[in-house]
Amino acid sequence: MSSEFNLIDRFFVQNNVSRSDVDLGIGDDCALVSVPEGYQVAITTDTLAAGTHFLIDADPVKVGYKALASNLSDLAAMGAKPTWVSLALTLPKPDEKWLEGFCEGFFGLAKQHNVQLIGGDTTKGPLSITITVQGLVPTGEGLTRKGAKVGDDIYVTGFIGDSAAGLEILLDTNKQIKTQLEQELEHRHYYSNPKVQLAQKIRHLCHSALDISDGLISDLGHILKQSNVSAKIQVNALPISDELLAFYSHDIDKCLKTALVSGEEYELCFTAPKENREAIKQISFLLNHDVSIIGEISEGPFTTLDNNVKLRKDSILLDWVLYGYDHFRN
Amino acid sequence: MSSEFNLIDRFFVQNNVSRSDVDLGIGDDCALVSVPEGYQVAITTDTLAAGTHFLIDADPVKVGYKALASNLSDLAAMGAKPTWVSLALTLPKPDEKWLEGFCEGFFGLAKQHNVQLIGGDTTKGPLSITITVQGLVPTGEGLTRKGAKVGDDIYVTGFIGDSAAGLEILLDTNKQIKTQLEQELEHRHYYSNPKVQLAQKIRHLCHSALDISDGLISDLGHILKQSNVSAKIQVNALPISDELLAFYSHDIDKCLKTALVSGEEYELCFTAPKENREAIKQISFLLNHDVSIIGEISEGPFTTLDNNVKLRKDSILLDWVLYGYDHFRN
Repeated sequence: MSSEFNLIDRFFVQNNVSRSDVDLGIGDDCALVSVPEGYQVAITTDTLAAGTHFLIDADPVKVGYKALASNLSDLAAMGAKPTWVSLALTLPKPDEKWLEGFCEGFFGLAKQHNVQLIGGDTTKGPLSITITVQGLVPTGEGLTRKGAKVGDDIYVTGFIGDSAAGLEILLDTNKQIKTQLEQELEHRHYYSNPKVQLAQKIRHLCHSALDISDGLISDLGHILKQSNVSAKIQVNALPISDELLAFYSHDIDKCLKTALVSGEEYELCFTAPKENREAIKQISFLLNHDVSIIGEISEGPFTTLDNNVKLRKDSILLDWVLYGYDHFRN
Repeated sequence: MSSEFNLIDRFFVQNNVSRSDVDLGIGDDCALVSVPEGYQVAITTDTLAAGTHFLIDADPVKVGYKALASNLSDLAAMGAKPTWVSLALTLPKPDEKWLEGFCEGFFGLAKQHNVQLIGGDTTKGPLSITITVQGLVPTGEGLTRKGAKVGDDIYVTGFIGDSAAGLEILLDTNKQIKTQLEQELEHRHYYSNPKVQLAQKIRHLCHSALDISDGLISDLGHILKQSNVSAKIQVNALPISDELLAFYSHDIDKCLKTALVSGEEYELCFTAPKENREAIKQISFLLNHDVSIIGEISEGPFTTLDNNVKLRKDSILLDWVLYGYDHFRN
């Protein structure tokens, strides 16, 4: 059986990406990196714990991918370009097969985005992954949650709701054999595609952004609160996939409600002035990303989600009560 | 009971340090920080898991202090000045009393070193803390493990071995009432003093450095391996506290062996050319830190610890077989 140091070397050093701005990588007390003039560093940290964020026996390839994807999605929400990642891995035992799978998922995505692993820690304990990822953004150009302006269009990328349906399928222990549709939704739960390139290209056209990790309504609430504004949402405009529709037997309200609260989507929600519609549409088209306008920022001031988010279907005001995911909510 | 978001706000935002180079702190998808020209960013990550690194019922004040201290010690080993910290906290439940204690320890130390918490994650799960701390070092001046030169003095800071003795006392469930001596050693196990200021002041005088987290012998091995050199250690010169001597009933060999393998000391081990002895002594004296010369770097090449580290007591070669701590060693 390998020792801690051999494990690190075998799995993490050999699979790694190599960047010229990493002056000292894995293997010392710290990593050393260089930041070009005129840039700020964007930093974000996320934990995925077995039993809370993924099943203890989940495919390690999927876990490795998802752990990095969820963090890259936070960088995308700032419009930052990913650069460096630190990985803290707590494992019950040095399971080489698990590590091999994890690295396949993790480094596969890291390579796509040219992110170099610069350090971390491997510890014995209940399975858990904490990732800190860093990126660069031209000084002053980072997209935050507090820039939304009255009259802004509200956008989301991709389809939403699929991740929640995928999780539902995943957790259904009665399902021994899964249909192709179910397999596809389960796949989407794990394999979100962080909107890193798109965000960098439309950053200058937007007023605010965040990524949908706790559910659209809950996350949009952060924009509204920090920008002190309200929102009108046309639920008909929510981007629902054919697969979600089919899975919920074309119960459209069920699909829309799922889309509004589904966490771990890792799609972006952003706001932008109406005059930028055409430019955003063009850039999204060129980069092969779907974006949908789902509503409009309206006058605040922000007090509560119930007060400040008006959901309409066709022109009828809805009284749906929806909450996002919160680990410690009773 | 508080929700996740209220918890973060109540405990982490209100206690925080405020730095002018943090352009965007807690509360968005990422933090944004500015790096001054002419500096590199030093980054390090460490996990402390309950049951592995601390007892599940350990005083949260001590846990909060130690979690940050162990990371600051890695920055000290580079000679970097600490700046920003991210905290990923996994908790079985939102225990406000525990969090209050944790924050007291964590932010007490953060304030001493002017480190700002810039983000993180709170998750439900088995108690575990992962910290990523960052610092600044003038470009090219970071102390690494690979600069040791033949003829260098080998130094350690402070006393070593106390942390292991403290842990032994801590784990002794038969001990209901602890003597003052035992309480003091237990205190030292938790309250190491990361040598952050000292390292910045002597950085230019040293060839290599690291912090003692896995045991002196094991950690020194990293310097030897990366510098491809050997070491001669005079065990008589190891800095042993009066408290350790008293605890082990003046069994000097027991004390020395403990000092050689004791992990989680968070003292520095560094090497420097002999002509810098006087300068290092003076600076250490001015900053109120003890430093001891415990041996000398000798010719390599490095193969194994047993081969390349010669331990002598008085002038007698010792055959002690010593290993540092490795989470996954069988």
